[in-house]
Amino acid sequence: MRACVLRGGGLVVDDVPTPLPEAGQLLVRVLACGICGSDLHFLNHAPAFVAMTEEVRPSMGPQAAAVPTLDLDRDIVMGHEFCGEVVELGPGTAGPTPGTRVVSVPVVLSGTGVHQLAYNNDFPGGYAEYLLLSSALALEVPDGLDTRRAALTEPLAVGLHAVARSGAAARHGAVVVGCGPVGLAVVAGLVAAGVEVIVAADFSPARRAMAGALGATETVDPAVEGVVDAWRRLDGRRPLLAFEAVGVPGSLGQLLRDVPPATGVTVVGVCMEPDRIVPFHAIAKELDLHFVLAYGPDEFAGALRAQAEGTIDVSPMVTGTVGLEGVPGAFEALGRPDEHVKILVEPGLT
Amino acid sequence: MRACVLRGGGLVVDDVPTPLPEAGQLLVRVLACGICGSDLHFLNHAPAFVAMTEEVRPSMGPQAAAVPTLDLDRDIVMGHEFCGEVVELGPGTAGPTPGTRVVSVPVVLSGTGVHQLAYNNDFPGGYAEYLLLSSALALEVPDGLDTRRAALTEPLAVGLHAVARSGAAARHGAVVVGCGPVGLAVVAGLVAAGVEVIVAADFSPARRAMAGALGATETVDPAVEGVVDAWRRLDGRRPLLAFEAVGVPGSLGQLLRDVPPATGVTVVGVCMEPDRIVPFHAIAKELDLHFVLAYGPDEFAGALRAQAEGTIDVSPMVTGTVGLEGVPGAFEALGRPDEHVKILVEPGLT
Repeated sequence: MRACVLRGGGLVVDDVPTPLPEAGQLLVRVLACGICGSDLHFLNHAPAFVAMTEEVRPSMGPQAAAVPTLDLDRDIVMGHEFCGEVVELGPGTAGPTPGTRVVSVPVVLSGTGVHQLAYNNDFPGGYAEYLLLSSALALEVPDGLDTRRAALTEPLAVGLHAVARSGAAARHGAVVVGCGPVGLAVVAGLVAAGVEVIVAADFSPARRAMAGALGATETVDPAVEGVVDAWRRLDGRRPLLAFEAVGVPGSLGQLLRDVPPATGVTVVGVCMEPDRIVPFHAIAKELDLHFVLAYGPDEFAGALRAQAEGTIDVSPMVTGTVGLEGVPGAFEALGRPDEHVKILVEPGLT
Repeated sequence: MRACVLRGGGLVVDDVPTPLPEAGQLLVRVLACGICGSDLHFLNHAPAFVAMTEEVRPSMGPQAAAVPTLDLDRDIVMGHEFCGEVVELGPGTAGPTPGTRVVSVPVVLSGTGVHQLAYNNDFPGGYAEYLLLSSALALEVPDGLDTRRAALTEPLAVGLHAVARSGAAARHGAVVVGCGPVGLAVVAGLVAAGVEVIVAADFSPARRAMAGALGATETVDPAVEGVVDAWRRLDGRRPLLAFEAVGVPGSLGQLLRDVPPATGVTVVGVCMEPDRIVPFHAIAKELDLHFVLAYGPDEFAGALRAQAEGTIDVSPMVTGTVGLEGVPGAFEALGRPDEHVKILVEPGLT
């Protein structure tokens, strides 16, 4: 099959072996797969990612088994925000019939264990014509839900999980730093949680406009006004929740300095480098920090349901689609944040 | 009156004006006042403390009013862990009669507002013969409670508050990094919260012995075994809470690397320098961080009550007493952590 492969530190489109479903697995044709900010981070910082993963592996207990030890000298096919169509079931497998559209948490079960998809030498992600899913984990996409929106289930689940971990409720105000896909999903989640004052910040006018379309009360250019200053101007009274959705060094430290006492700070941007904070700033104000990464299967299913029922629509964040040959160029384009937000890879496009 | 004064970056014992109580205030003779690790930090890092305080001041809202702007060219009398005896009441003041022993949160009210005691050019703390308290905030020390133990109310309240913020319950395990007064108060608080497995770490054998006496299940020398490794050896199954009670750069980062997924990390050591963390470690394991500083008036009253009722006894941490002339030497001795843990200043000693 054709796939966009991470090889030798760069992306190339090449033929790779089509995976074979074993018992319990589904061979799925990828219909659409979003490019995640984490994929850009991974492309630029793969050795650091591998090193940091191995640093924490001894502390992860049973969870470590699902996290593969990556060999950067071998191919990796990324892409974990996919919607696909079942093509074939593994031997003796019950499950959705061929032709059924499915989404899934990016994990596959095999006889040897639980495997994270995408950041894995052995299990390709969605930047390919096909991937393997587990019948037990696949969720059928409801008929009325567009394939492209179904592919946004994963990033929406990240946002909903971050909002849930923050404890957001109608009584809170919120600031969101960074209006990439994760920040936008957080905005959508905050609206769904009933938060009435949401101030979102991004240097990009296009991304700010999108945050406004998704329900941010106010958007600010951090070069003009600090996001916390804007919140003080608009509200300043409710207990505040802050979301760090940038993931570059310095962003968290600035938030710790600027937020009011007792703010809950949720870190959902994945910073790939060491960072510098001033603990005194957080201590003096008794801040809480919640570091978040993914979501539970229930939250993933909830994101699919919210989209199917129309209560949340994050599709405005999609700014482009490309075929497999266009993936390397799409990664480059996403490095210029005023051009694109979310690009979907549609391997069927030529 | 005599006082030990922070002047020109060092401690000197000198005569300073005895404060005069205004309406609502009490003039209190200091009977005992503990030397806090924060005082050592402040002696060594006062300019950094002032700079960091001013960095967060704009973000503190109404709380900023209680935090004085310090002038390091003027005298400061530290000491915020005091027990004293009422000598005189301000004009028209109702409250405890002269001779009554009292403790108080280190805050005093005046006609001009709310003032933090001790780290303040205008309101001396307990390293002096006398200080001013507010009648409305002073708590009478119950008859059966020894003055020295009453002076431990403040550091115990810090520990109880940290434990409360961590959400500790009987179902948790706990690791405590650092067995200075705050770490020891945390151990005592964890025992009171019903936590059954408590592993405490310190390089000092004397401090480890004290942690054991206060109820730590196991104590470790971090040069020999990591505190989280020891917890895995002993338990490793309960949800874990971790307490950073050292407050030097690097300690928090190490804990974020070593703790298991979903650990709640409470930062109660006051680090006076910028620190380096690897956010990825905390993100990959979805950690929660709680930064804590002080306590509420209810927690302070609870610490006094727990001591009076005998449910918590942290008096083993007291390793020495000095008069005012001995304070500079006591600060030096506390810099060598195997000699002392908590030294009480008793201005009446000669």
